[in-house]
Amino acid sequence: MPSTPDPPRPPGPSGDARRPASQQGMRRQNLALVLGMIAEHGPLSRADVAVRTGLTRAAVSSLVVSLHQAGLVVELGPAPSGRVGRPGHALVLSSTGPAGLGLEVGVEHLAVCVADLSGEVRAQLRVAAANRGRPAAEVLAELTGLAERVLGEAAALGLRPAGAVMAVPGLVDAASGEVVHAANLGWRGLRLPELLLGLRLEAGNEANLGALAELWHGGPGGPADFVHVSAESGIGAALVVGGRLFPGARGFAGELGHVPVHPEGPGCPCGARGCLEQYAGEGAVLAAAGLPQAPGDWVGLLAKRAAEGAAPVLAALEQAGAALGTALAGAVNLVDPEAVVLGGAYAELGEWLLPEMRRELAERVTVRPWEPGALTVSALGRGGPLLGAALVTVRRVLEDPGGLLPLPD
Amino acid sequence: MPSTPDPPRPPGPSGDARRPASQQGMRRQNLALVLGMIAEHGPLSRADVAVRTGLTRAAVSSLVVSLHQAGLVVELGPAPSGRVGRPGHALVLSSTGPAGLGLEVGVEHLAVCVADLSGEVRAQLRVAAANRGRPAAEVLAELTGLAERVLGEAAALGLRPAGAVMAVPGLVDAASGEVVHAANLGWRGLRLPELLLGLRLEAGNEANLGALAELWHGGPGGPADFVHVSAESGIGAALVVGGRLFPGARGFAGELGHVPVHPEGPGCPCGARGCLEQYAGEGAVLAAAGLPQAPGDWVGLLAKRAAEGAAPVLAALEQAGAALGTALAGAVNLVDPEAVVLGGAYAELGEWLLPEMRRELAERVTVRPWEPGALTVSALGRGGPLLGAALVTVRRVLEDPGGLLPLPD
Repeated sequence: MPSTPDPPRPPGPSGDARRPASQQGMRRQNLALVLGMIAEHGPLSRADVAVRTGLTRAAVSSLVVSLHQAGLVVELGPAPSGRVGRPGHALVLSSTGPAGLGLEVGVEHLAVCVADLSGEVRAQLRVAAANRGRPAAEVLAELTGLAERVLGEAAALGLRPAGAVMAVPGLVDAASGEVVHAANLGWRGLRLPELLLGLRLEAGNEANLGALAELWHGGPGGPADFVHVSAESGIGAALVVGGRLFPGARGFAGELGHVPVHPEGPGCPCGARGCLEQYAGEGAVLAAAGLPQAPGDWVGLLAKRAAEGAAPVLAALEQAGAALGTALAGAVNLVDPEAVVLGGAYAELGEWLLPEMRRELAERVTVRPWEPGALTVSALGRGGPLLGAALVTVRRVLEDPGGLLPLPD
Repeated sequence: MPSTPDPPRPPGPSGDARRPASQQGMRRQNLALVLGMIAEHGPLSRADVAVRTGLTRAAVSSLVVSLHQAGLVVELGPAPSGRVGRPGHALVLSSTGPAGLGLEVGVEHLAVCVADLSGEVRAQLRVAAANRGRPAAEVLAELTGLAERVLGEAAALGLRPAGAVMAVPGLVDAASGEVVHAANLGWRGLRLPELLLGLRLEAGNEANLGALAELWHGGPGGPADFVHVSAESGIGAALVVGGRLFPGARGFAGELGHVPVHPEGPGCPCGARGCLEQYAGEGAVLAAAGLPQAPGDWVGLLAKRAAEGAAPVLAALEQAGAALGTALAGAVNLVDPEAVVLGGAYAELGEWLLPEMRRELAERVTVRPWEPGALTVSALGRGGPLLGAALVTVRRVLEDPGGLLPLPD
């Protein structure tokens, strides 16, 4: 499933070729450069930052003053230096101040969290909620109540979220932010309020946010180009390309669940035949496993039965793994990712899904190199979308501190 | 088939967040801004350029001096102005000076062309050549001879290509530029010479270059996000995203020919079963049409027989269209393009392929909006890859004139 919460942003530090470069733009770009360096490599002295960025020490000092005033960096106090001269004060990201608020509407739960600039979750709440077919206004009211409590906790820790992003299991229009269709909630054409408790609110697709959490959580060094597959009520995927979510032309990229696996296969509620969801989606797997479709933790149930060695469950997961592998083989041939990550709730079924997925990928991805180890299981699992929702705001602050904060200049 | 000729470039005008912004970088960015404005909207007076870019007239004048000295823009002479003051001299792209050299190695032909800054082909040659299994050194020697003649013609027109790009029907490693595998030529692990007649030489995949030609040829206004399908000996696709070729992590994106269509279908030489090429590739279509597989213009032959109403040919093209549609439905669900373009030699079969392709797409792309008209046929057809190869260099010059040319400052 699709859509990226990447709506119109202020002109950022990465330079828009359609507008002239300016002194102000340069300062903004350099603020991001310095903050990014501290985020990635801190603690760093001003001298270290100057060496790593190529900026002068005077420029770094001036930029650090702004970042400090904005509550983005703090000094750890004098650190011993191996070099001649004054010992440098070590700069690190602030553990108070600007933060991100993440919200999640699941089919059977609601959740809220606040993450700080380091990406650490500092406050969170998760409650069971039967949201299938429930009026959206009621869902949002309950979620707002939870958010109020989490924001209260965050405030007590000195954290001030700069924006709110809500993960939903459905299509979100990238340009308008409208929830086009969330079948399992019964939402269609839903426009969210612009503000939630005074914070700008945006919707994002849960599969996309899960992928972003995977990308950002591991820090630098992990793959920057991968297909992230997740499943809860439907099967979604998200493409991460060059360290960015790939939204597609309209924000609908990643509809892996409706990629044809057997073109003449069983009919799908979407109107087509033989879609991946007919082989690896909730209903198909439960039916093949001989289990009833009922509210609750069906993934946990499947994992339990599979671990007990229940033959129909093992066979159902094997079939689902093969279908996932076939659909992903097409995706890999088309998109050429570095890796494929199985995330979301299905991460808990990895032990039984992976062997067939790997076999199909090995058999069908032959015209370019493919290693079985390039298919991995996410460590975040079903916690991904909520974390990703909170991190969207954190990343925006880190990537363009000048866009958010009042700056002298 | 994949790979983009987009190898390491000098730091461009679009701003690298890892290095500090500088005065020199600003000038470089503004040179690209002014040149791009003239390319897109010329003829323009300096005053028009200043209004459209937001730069001062003094800055525009200084930048234009550099662009003029580098042979990139010329003045058409005084143009009447509706405004008070001196009439402005109209600036346009130069039709002499910097240009792009394109080369193409086909299975049965060789071709070379030179395109000027406006993207117009000013000199070209195309010869029949039986390249299947022919030693690469021999192919390159013949191609170099052709290039020498085309460069001679171009020089007589005052054109000086700034780089050479060669279209090949195979996988090209984006990082190293190595031709990893071109099955129909019998090339494997081929490293091209770095220079060809004094010009820096790069290889690019023919399907990618055809897609770029499609993108750039139409000028602004056409779709910036599309899947371009092309077929000659194999079936390749290229993804264009946000007006850029999407290379994939290793430059191998777009392997549509090996997307599974019927997972238990006939074996493919790639080792898998039921790949798209087994239904819509040259061999499959000719066999289904009851025609022998022989060197020559098989696409032209199919078109002729189809136009005559030969039933087995019509049925073969219908089957191929359905398979293309199924594979593309997966691609559209996954990548969410604005449009799908049928290019390369298959553009000539559009009349017979399109109905089934459209039917499959309509049936299988249902969870997001899809219009039948979003599938179109390229006007460039088999001329695309060679044009695209020449335009790569032209676009680089336009997008970063400061990276190519000696500049005062």
